[in-house]
Amino acid sequence: MSDMDTGDIASTPEPPYYAVVFTSVLRPDHDGYYETAALMAKLVADSPGYLGHESARGADGLGITVAYFTDEAAIKTWRDNAEHAAARARGRAEWYSGFELRISKVERAYGFRRAD
Amino acid sequence: MSDMDTGDIASTPEPPYYAVVFTSVLRPDHDGYYETAALMAKLVADSPGYLGHESARGADGLGITVAYFTDEAAIKTWRDNAEHAAARARGRAEWYSGFELRISKVERAYGFRRAD
Repeated sequence: MSDMDTGDIASTPEPPYYAVVFTSVLRPDHDGYYETAALMAKLVADSPGYLGHESARGADGLGITVAYFTDEAAIKTWRDNAEHAAARARGRAEWYSGFELRISKVERAYGFRRAD
Repeated sequence: MSDMDTGDIASTPEPPYYAVVFTSVLRPDHDGYYETAALMAKLVADSPGYLGHESARGADGLGITVAYFTDEAAIKTWRDNAEHAAARARGRAEWYSGFELRISKVERAYGFRRAD
């Protein structure tokens, strides 16, 4: 999976659900990367079983995107999206010096939101 | 868990293992945050069952840190570290406008590293 535009903390339901953790390092030359990432962020939101995503990339080029899905079937559906597959191929060929993708099952979660 | 300094893609073993995904938003005033984050990155590396971590924070203040551990016992050991507990308390009181922590079991993983 390619990573996506930055936003807020995802509002996810009670576990269990799935988290796809995509960690990547951008090459210095990555023309078109951010445009494609923004498009993927829009597309995944319409993919069945999508629950939300979070994305951050630091000044050093290391980025982490976590996308949340209801189950493994939802992850497979997004993986098989044709535009997503094309973006992944371009990422591997042009944009990334390396990445790691980890598919995990969220067992517990808790959060904190400041009241003020 | 507080988040940590930025680095490289973590080298993790074959699954299964655990991923603790910590997503946070910093308040505009967060004096001492980065110093504490760097200290936590050093401490966690010595915690039993630690496998590695990755961290990224974008210009908008949203950060994601993922720490990898062998099992739930290792996560509990790090949670119970006294300096880590103090850092978490300070994060909640001073640094974060919000966070979400998700404990997940990594079932599958694959990566790519460019040869050139």
